[in-house]
Amino acid sequence: MTARQNSIPETMRASVLVEKGVIALQKRPVPTPAPDEVLIKVACVGVCGSDVHYYKEGRIGDFIVDAPLVLGHEVSGRIVAVGRDVSESRIGERVAIEPQRPCRTCPQCMAGRYNLCPEMKFYATPPIDGAFQDYVTIQSPFAHKVPDSLSDEEAALLEPLSVGIWACQKAQIGPGSRVLIAGAGPIGIITAQAARGYGASEIIMSDLLEDRRKRALTLGATHVIDPSKESVSDLGVDAFIDCSGATPAIKSGITAVRGAGHVILVGMGADEVPLPLPIIQVRELTVTGTFRYTGTWPIATQMVAQGKVDLNALVTAKFDLDHVQDALEATFDPTSLKPVVYL
Amino acid sequence: MTARQNSIPETMRASVLVEKGVIALQKRPVPTPAPDEVLIKVACVGVCGSDVHYYKEGRIGDFIVDAPLVLGHEVSGRIVAVGRDVSESRIGERVAIEPQRPCRTCPQCMAGRYNLCPEMKFYATPPIDGAFQDYVTIQSPFAHKVPDSLSDEEAALLEPLSVGIWACQKAQIGPGSRVLIAGAGPIGIITAQAARGYGASEIIMSDLLEDRRKRALTLGATHVIDPSKESVSDLGVDAFIDCSGATPAIKSGITAVRGAGHVILVGMGADEVPLPLPIIQVRELTVTGTFRYTGTWPIATQMVAQGKVDLNALVTAKFDLDHVQDALEATFDPTSLKPVVYL
Amino acid sequence: MTARQNSIPETMRASVLVEKGVIALQKRPVPTPAPDEVLIKVACVGVCGSDVHYYKEGRIGDFIVDAPLVLGHEVSGRIVAVGRDVSESRIGERVAIEPQRPCRTCPQCMAGRYNLCPEMKFYATPPIDGAFQDYVTIQSPFAHKVPDSLSDEEAALLEPLSVGIWACQKAQIGPGSRVLIAGAGPIGIITAQAARGYGASEIIMSDLLEDRRKRALTLGATHVIDPSKESVSDLGVDAFIDCSGATPAIKSGITAVRGAGHVILVGMGADEVPLPLPIIQVRELTVTGTFRYTGTWPIATQMVAQGKVDLNALVTAKFDLDHVQDALEATFDPTSLKPVVYL
Amino acid sequence: MTARQNSIPETMRASVLVEKGVIALQKRPVPTPAPDEVLIKVACVGVCGSDVHYYKEGRIGDFIVDAPLVLGHEVSGRIVAVGRDVSESRIGERVAIEPQRPCRTCPQCMAGRYNLCPEMKFYATPPIDGAFQDYVTIQSPFAHKVPDSLSDEEAALLEPLSVGIWACQKAQIGPGSRVLIAGAGPIGIITAQAARGYGASEIIMSDLLEDRRKRALTLGATHVIDPSKESVSDLGVDAFIDCSGATPAIKSGITAVRGAGHVILVGMGADEVPLPLPIIQVRELTVTGTFRYTGTWPIATQMVAQGKVDLNALVTAKFDLDHVQDALEATFDPTSLKPVVYL
Repeated sequence: MTARQNSIPETMRASVLVEKGVIALQKRPVPTPAPDEVLIKVACVGVCGSDVHYYKEGRIGDFIVDAPLVLGHEVSGRIVAVGRDVSESRIGERVAIEPQRPCRTCPQCMAGRYNLCPEMKFYATPPIDGAFQDYVTIQSPFAHKVPDSLSDEEAALLEPLSVGIWACQKAQIGPGSRVLIAGAGPIGIITAQAARGYGASEIIMSDLLEDRRKRALTLGATHVIDPSKESVSDLGVDAFIDCSGATPAIKSGITAVRGAGHVILVGMGADEVPLPLPIIQVRELTVTGTFRYTGTWPIATQMVAQGKVDLNALVTAKFDLDHVQDALEATFDPTSLKPVVYL
Repeated sequence: MTARQNSIPETMRASVLVEKGVIALQKRPVPTPAPDEVLIKVACVGVCGSDVHYYKEGRIGDFIVDAPLVLGHEVSGRIVAVGRDVSESRIGERVAIEPQRPCRTCPQCMAGRYNLCPEMKFYATPPIDGAFQDYVTIQSPFAHKVPDSLSDEEAALLEPLSVGIWACQKAQIGPGSRVLIAGAGPIGIITAQAARGYGASEIIMSDLLEDRRKRALTLGATHVIDPSKESVSDLGVDAFIDCSGATPAIKSGITAVRGAGHVILVGMGADEVPLPLPIIQVRELTVTGTFRYTGTWPIATQMVAQGKVDLNALVTAKFDLDHVQDALEATFDPTSLKPVVYL
Repeated sequence: MTARQNSIPETMRASVLVEKGVIALQKRPVPTPAPDEVLIKVACVGVCGSDVHYYKEGRIGDFIVDAPLVLGHEVSGRIVAVGRDVSESRIGERVAIEPQRPCRTCPQCMAGRYNLCPEMKFYATPPIDGAFQDYVTIQSPFAHKVPDSLSDEEAALLEPLSVGIWACQKAQIGPGSRVLIAGAGPIGIITAQAARGYGASEIIMSDLLEDRRKRALTLGATHVIDPSKESVSDLGVDAFIDCSGATPAIKSGITAVRGAGHVILVGMGADEVPLPLPIIQVRELTVTGTFRYTGTWPIATQMVAQGKVDLNALVTAKFDLDHVQDALEATFDPTSLKPVVYL
Repeated sequence: MTARQNSIPETMRASVLVEKGVIALQKRPVPTPAPDEVLIKVACVGVCGSDVHYYKEGRIGDFIVDAPLVLGHEVSGRIVAVGRDVSESRIGERVAIEPQRPCRTCPQCMAGRYNLCPEMKFYATPPIDGAFQDYVTIQSPFAHKVPDSLSDEEAALLEPLSVGIWACQKAQIGPGSRVLIAGAGPIGIITAQAARGYGASEIIMSDLLEDRRKRALTLGATHVIDPSKESVSDLGVDAFIDCSGATPAIKSGITAVRGAGHVILVGMGADEVPLPLPIIQVRELTVTGTFRYTGTWPIATQMVAQGKVDLNALVTAKFDLDHVQDALEATFDPTSLKPVVYL
C-alpha cells in the first residue's frame, strides 16, 4: 500500500527513444513506487551527452538500446507519493534525483562504493527508463530535498555538478590547487565550477574552439589554452582532469602534472589510449577514472545555495516534453551547454 | 674534519663501466664524507637490472652514460668514518645503504616524498657513481643500521626488497588481499615475498617461462599462470602489480582487477602503452607507478629479521670485485635472480 | 515464502537472561527468516565480556535489559533455510555470523560505515536477541561462508578476531609497526594475534597480573610489561591500543606513542577519563575508538585459514546450552579467555 | 661568505623580554645568515597569544624563559642578504616567514612531518629568538615569496592563518561541511575564515562573550551560540575545532559531532581534561591536536590573494618597535584580535 496525493492520474506522457534517432511521445501507466521508493512528479530534466549518444548511436559500449527506452537522468521534481516503508511526511517535498538504484547488499555497496555496484539500475541506461516522462520513482534516500532557493533547473543540474564534484574529490582539489581541465564542453565547464567551489586557485582549461575558450573564462576558468598552439607539458599542475575524451588531450595532459599529482579521466574516449607510462612511473602520478558518484548531492546543493556555482548560467536552451528530440539535437551545436526540458 | 678509523687507505679498487659493454678495475682515491655523510667499507653489492641495462645499452631513457661510471646500488657494509656533523659513535656500525641523496629542501622533499626530488643524486645513475668499489659515502640517515641476525647479502638486498615493499604499500596489500603479479623475475619474486610479508592471502604470478613459474611457487606465489594459455580477466583481484614491463601483461593485468582496486606499474617498459581506459573508468581503478621508495629500510629490516622474507634464497651466483662483468652477464640467464659481488 | 530443509522443528531451546543474574532455558518458536535473511542452525557460541556485563549488571550504558534477552553474539552454524530473496543454493553452507543488522539506507550505511548506523539491530543488545538458542536469523550478506579448514569454534571466534582486526586497521598496523596493547584479557590477546597477522614487528603487552603476562608471551606478545613497576612513557611506539578500559592504562599508554602515532580505545571504561591533551596536541596523536567493525570477516577468515592466528588456543572452557550460566561465570576467573557454548 | 645589500648596518634594535613582564629595547648585532639561510629586514610582526603567555607567565609548559628572549613569530619583511648556498636572485624579495627551523634529517622530517621534528628551533620559543627586531634569519625555503597584492600585515598574518588552515585540513573541511568552532578569539576567528576558504557551508561559533559572538558573525561565522544558554550536543556537525582551550567547551564540543566526525584541539588548555570516551568510541570520532603546521604558506597566500580571507580586518591595533609592551598588553582586552608591530 502506498500513500499518495489524490491528484495522480492513471496514465502519463513519456518521451520514448523507440529506435536509433527516433523519439516518440507515448501514453504509459504512471509507475507505482516500491516499498522503499517515492513517486516524483518531474519538474525539469537536463540533456546529457550520454542521452545524445544513445539517441544517435543506439549504444554506449556494452550498453545497447534494443527496446524502447526513456532517456533523461538529470531530474528535479516533487514527491507526490511514497512506498510502504517511507514516511508520508515526504509527500510534497521538492527534490533532486540521484538517478541510481544500487543493490545495497553487495560488497561494493556495503563498502560505501555503491556507484560500483554490479547490480546497479541507472536511469536512462538500457534497460532502465529515465525521466523524460511525467512521473518517475526512485529509492527514498536518492530523492534529495532541495531548499526553495534552488530553481527547478538548478535542482536538475545537481546531477552534472555531481560529476564535477566527484572528479574534484578524486583530484584532491582544495585551496591553492592548480588544475588543468581538458575540454570546455558542459562537463568541463561544470567541473571548473566545482573546482572553484573546492577552492582551486588556478583553473586552466584547454579547448580547440575559441568560442568555448572565451566562454570558459566567464564560467570558471582562470586561464585558457589553445592546445593546437601551446604545450601544457611545463605547467606542473597538481591535477589534470580530462573532460574531453580526446586521446591527444589525455596524452599531453598527463605530462602537465607535477610529481605525485593526480590524473582524473572523466570524458569517455577510445577503447584503448596509448599512455606515457614512464611519466606516470617516474612522477608516481595517480591515474583514475570517475564512474558516476556517491554522496555528492548534499555537497552540490550547498555549493549552489551558497552561490559558489552558477548552474542557471549553463542553461542554453529550453524545451517542452513535445520537443525532446529538438533538445537532444540542440547539443550538436558545439557551443551548447545544457538544453533543459520542462514538464 | 672527519672522524675515521686509522686503517683507511688513500686509494681503493673501483670496478668501472668505461664504455658500453666494457668493465675495468681501476685505482681511485677513497672518497671523503661530506659533513652530513658517513664513509662505508663495502661488504657486498647485488646486481640489478638497471646496472645490466647501463652495461648493455649505455643508457636508460634520458640517463646516458657519457663518462666512466661505477655501477651497483644494492649495498651493505660497515661505517669506517663520519663527516663533521655525524656522531662518531656510528663508526663500526654494520649498515645497509639507501642509495639516494635528495636535496631535502625542495617541496617534494619537505612533503616527505624525497624519492621525487628533482635534484636527486642516486647511486649508479649517471653521473653519480655506485658501489662496485671498496668505499662509498652516503648521508648519515641513509645508512641504516642492521642487526647481526642479517647477513651481508641480506643487508644488501634490502634495496630490491624496498622496491617490493613500496609497490605493496601503494597497492594497499594487507591480510586478505588477493594480488596478481606479472613477471617472475627478481623484482616479481621479491614483490611476492613482500606481499606475503604484508599478509596477502592469495599471490598469483604470471610468467611465460615454466621454470620461472615453478620457482615462483617455492618463493612466495600461491598460484601461477601461463599467460599464453590462461586469461586473467576474471580474477577480480584487489591489486595488480606489473613487474614485467611487457605491454600485453600490463593490458591484460588491468582487466584482472575488481572495482576500486589498484594497478601498480613497477617494471619499465615501452614509452607508450595502450591502456583500456574505459575499464579504468568504469571500475574506478587507481593506476600508479613506483619510483624507488621512501622510508622502507626499517620495514625491510624487520621483515627479514622476523623471517617473513628469505633474501638468501634469491642469491643465484657469487662473484668477487674482479668479476663484476661476469656478475652482470650472469643475469642474461632467464632463471637468474640475484648475482652478488663480495668485496 | 521461504526455502528450507525438511528437518526444521517448530520450536527450539533458548537460554534466556530472564532478569539480572538469572538464566533460564525456555522453549521458543524457531524464527522465520525475512526475505533477505537466512536461518542458521547454531553450532557454537563464544562468551563475550558484554554478555557477562548484561548478566551481572543488567545494562551497559544506555542499553538496559528490561525484558527477557537471549545473550551471545559470537556465532557459527549452518544455513538451513533462506528468505524469499536469497538463493536456495546457500542452504547447507557452514557460516560465521556477523551479528549486525544495519538499515542500509541511512547516510552512515551508504557511506560504508554501517557499524555506525543509528538504526542498528545488534545481537544480544537489548531488545535484540542473540544466539544462545538453536536457531537464529541474519541478513544473508552477514552470514559469511567459512572453509572446511576452520573448526566451529574458530568460525564463532571470527567475531572477537574482527574486533582485533578493526583496531589494527585503525591503528595502521603493518610490517615494522611497534604497538603497545594494554590489557591481556581476551580482547587484548586476540588484538595481539591480529597485530601479528598485520605484520607488527613488536607487540608489547601490559597487564597487572603475572599469569596473564606469561600467557600473553605464548599467544602473540613479543614483550610484556608490569605497569605497576615499569613506565611505558619512553617506548615511542607507533600505536597504543587500549583493551583494558582502565583509566591509568589509557593515560599512561598515550605517553608511550611517538609523534603522529595512533591511540585506539577498544576497552570500555569510565564515562569520563582525564586525558593529557597537551601530549595529544604536541605530538599530533590521532585518538579514536572502535565500535564493532565493518568488512572484517573475509580478512578474519583468511587469517585463520593461513594459520596466522590460533583461535582454538583461546578456548579455555566448553559448555552445553544447559550451562550458559556456568559459561558466563567462567569468565570471572581472570585467566579465562573464551568459554564456548556448543549446541 | 654571504651576498648582501650594501645598506645593512652592523647593529640593530631588538625588543627583548628581559624578565617576566619586562620588555626592553636593546642594541644587538645584525645576525649573519647560515649557508642555507636568508637575512630579512622585518616589515611587521603580529602579536600572538603565546608571546603574551611568555610575557606574563615566563613559561609555556616545559618551555621556560630563563634568559632574555625576543618574542614575535608572525613576520613579514624583505630579503636583504643570502647565505652561501642560496641564490642571490632572492635578494629584494618580499616574503612571509614560516618561523620554524627543522633538522631535515630525523624520521619525522623525512616523512614530511617537519613540524614534529624533535630538534625544531622555533621563533620566540626559548631559547630561540623571534622577530621583534630589525633583522632576522631563516632557512631559505621558509621565507615564502608573497605577491604585491598582499600588504605587509597580511603577509605577517599568514602565520596565524596557517594555524587555521592546518586545523581545517585535519578536520577535513570541504564544501558542504558543517563545523563547530569554540572560542571567538583571534585563532577561532581566523579558523572560521580558513573554514570558509575550504568551502564549509555552516560555521557555528560558540563564545561566552556577546561582543565576540557579534563580531564573529561579521568575520566568518554563519551562526553563533552562547554556550551558557544553549547546548551544542544535538548539532551533529562534521567537525568540532576547539580554539578556546576551555575544558567545558572541549567536553561539550565532542558531543556535537556526528559519527565518524573529527575533533581538532587547537587551543592549549589544562594539562588533563576529562573526556567522554564512550562517545568517542561509540561514534568512532577522530580526536587529534594541531602543533604548528607544514606546507601551509602557499595555500594561505592564495587564500588571501583570492580574497577568500580578510586578514586586514583582523588588525585591531598598531604599534612601533618602541611599544612592543603596549602591543602585548593590548591583547588583555577580550575584543582584541591582532595587535601588529611595524618596524
